[in-house]
Amino acid sequence: MTDLTNPASNPTLALTMALIERASVTPEDAGCQQLMAARLAKVGFNIEMMPFADTLNMWARHGQGKPLFCFAGHTDVVPSGPVDAWHTPPFQPTIIGDTLFGRGAADMKGSLAAMVVATEQFLAQEPSPAFNLAYLITSDEEGPFINGTVKVIETLEARQEKIRWCLVGEPSSHLQVGDVIKNGRRGSLTGHLTIKGIQGHVAYPHLADNPIHKAAPALAALATEIWDNGNAYFPATSFQIANIQGGTGASNVIPGELNVMFNFRYSTEVDAEQLQSRVYALLDKFGLHYQLEWTLNGLPFLTEQGDLVDSTVAAIEKVRGITPRLETTGGTSDGRFIAPTGAQVIELGPCNATIHKVNECVAIADLCQLTEVYLQLLINLQQRLTA
Amino acid sequence: MTDLTNPASNPTLALTMALIERASVTPEDAGCQQLMAARLAKVGFNIEMMPFADTLNMWARHGQGKPLFCFAGHTDVVPSGPVDAWHTPPFQPTIIGDTLFGRGAADMKGSLAAMVVATEQFLAQEPSPAFNLAYLITSDEEGPFINGTVKVIETLEARQEKIRWCLVGEPSSHLQVGDVIKNGRRGSLTGHLTIKGIQGHVAYPHLADNPIHKAAPALAALATEIWDNGNAYFPATSFQIANIQGGTGASNVIPGELNVMFNFRYSTEVDAEQLQSRVYALLDKFGLHYQLEWTLNGLPFLTEQGDLVDSTVAAIEKVRGITPRLETTGGTSDGRFIAPTGAQVIELGPCNATIHKVNECVAIADLCQLTEVYLQLLINLQQRLTA
Repeated sequence: MTDLTNPASNPTLALTMALIERASVTPEDAGCQQLMAARLAKVGFNIEMMPFADTLNMWARHGQGKPLFCFAGHTDVVPSGPVDAWHTPPFQPTIIGDTLFGRGAADMKGSLAAMVVATEQFLAQEPSPAFNLAYLITSDEEGPFINGTVKVIETLEARQEKIRWCLVGEPSSHLQVGDVIKNGRRGSLTGHLTIKGIQGHVAYPHLADNPIHKAAPALAALATEIWDNGNAYFPATSFQIANIQGGTGASNVIPGELNVMFNFRYSTEVDAEQLQSRVYALLDKFGLHYQLEWTLNGLPFLTEQGDLVDSTVAAIEKVRGITPRLETTGGTSDGRFIAPTGAQVIELGPCNATIHKVNECVAIADLCQLTEVYLQLLINLQQRLTA
Repeated sequence: MTDLTNPASNPTLALTMALIERASVTPEDAGCQQLMAARLAKVGFNIEMMPFADTLNMWARHGQGKPLFCFAGHTDVVPSGPVDAWHTPPFQPTIIGDTLFGRGAADMKGSLAAMVVATEQFLAQEPSPAFNLAYLITSDEEGPFINGTVKVIETLEARQEKIRWCLVGEPSSHLQVGDVIKNGRRGSLTGHLTIKGIQGHVAYPHLADNPIHKAAPALAALATEIWDNGNAYFPATSFQIANIQGGTGASNVIPGELNVMFNFRYSTEVDAEQLQSRVYALLDKFGLHYQLEWTLNGLPFLTEQGDLVDSTVAAIEKVRGITPRLETTGGTSDGRFIAPTGAQVIELGPCNATIHKVNECVAIADLCQLTEVYLQLLINLQQRLTA
């Protein structure tokens, strides 16, 4: 019996560790794509690097002229956060017991490694499959996503290169690998709010107007507002304040303005315009003076039952003995940029409990099971096309 | 009739200008105390320099064994701010029309000059007064106030040298010289609050705990709380949030903590312990997890009606024909370090409209009137003691 916790006998673990070592905080790639490209080229992929501004992207394709299945993902990771709060150095992959710790272990270097190893194994047993394979990898998924998947998709669209099925390796799983497949995503809308006051000395509050004091009840109301109740595919729309900043640093100065950045993840029950007008109405009700600018990060999308969903559900049932739930909860992913081309898009990856947190980790067994599920999905697609 | 705007015929103006020329930005004294010491020694003062670390202090005393009246003040000034915004060089005293411009003109080199000239005139007509006179001068009032008045008072206390009456030359006046006497100051208490949450991805709010959302209603409650209603001498205690900061900068991360710095300016109707326990109770009521650290910047003090207040009010009424208001508003001053020794402490100086600003200035007539008021106060005390 092989020791799963030994990288020498576990290729997915070894590749995940090699990717974590490359400290690829957005938009840095830090050599991750080159590592993947070398592996894929060896099994017959044509590698096309597509850098845009500060972002590195890779489009790798195996075969021509057949329906295209694409693994999509990102090599960049979010910052480590306070290093002192980590039990292990965030960019030094560390095995403790049966778990691998490191920034990106779950989001999503483990997925990338599982894709590559599953692809190698699949092509070893099926050197000339009935469909083509591709990788769409970016180093700007966690950042402003301007020069990443969006630009690659524009390039592919311009040359009419179409993806039929796309699996994004985002960490979709909840309690065990494969218990959740994302078959759609909520919309994402960000508000940049500046609340105006009048700066002054704390000793003379009647000469000033404290924007933090004025904003507090309005922020409390925004935080408890019910925006909708969701529907069969989507959970209720959620509102979160991600950033707040006001003050000069001094303890005796009342600040002149307060800056707040908030984000909606919204269902198909509301649209961005409705959310915006409700926010305006609420801020006006509290008599605030403010400026508010919006960024629409992504419209919601949905992939209903079909080849891709069915083959993936079957793969999970065979490998894991469980039936996955189809969900649209969670963050945005680059799937929102791929789905509008007409592709079927799902997301399937490891458990997401620790993503973006300190001490991010992945169970080593999950890396193996994810590799098996990806492999089985490729086998199922092959059987479906050749049946 | 003498020309008030001619330094040769206006000794307070001349001395103010000589002090402004000495660019004594905190904690520099730049020779100001030496200049004052030379004048005071000439009229019989014993000069004791008390340097502590980077701060120069002067304790000058005239006479022994009688009740002690002390002029207190500081030779240091705040930085000039942007020199380009000044119409005249900040450290080059400049007369334009009937006004003297220069950093420190109002805060408080004009007061220091008026004290010295009034003292000289008083001792000329009363060579052996019924009370002793002293000066407590520091070069660290505008700074961290660690090595200034605090240390001098410690020294005096150690040798049981007691001040009965103290006039601090802070610019107390509002629209005209003598319209306001400060007969106390509010306390200042700063809280450094960290509200704990759980960091996470905005798309998975159920796995995180947003400290901004949790804090908002509590901050709203703190901002609207009535801490007291003040009293005859003090305005109501005020609470101001000076700084707030939460978030990683990213729009998709729920922060793990929120930092808030707030400040109380409080009356004698409450004490620091009461304010602290009410803040704790309020935060607990909202079920927050938090850390809270406190800085007590100054205890409130109050000098009620008595020898010093009465003599000063009478001096202003005689010289200026107006009755001053007694107030405790405004910032802190070194009076807070002198009052706890049991001294009666008031603050009386020129108008404060331009202090700490560019183009700081003082009306030349105000320098003369302030000198007359200080002189009349000394005369009134003498009469009170010999009546």
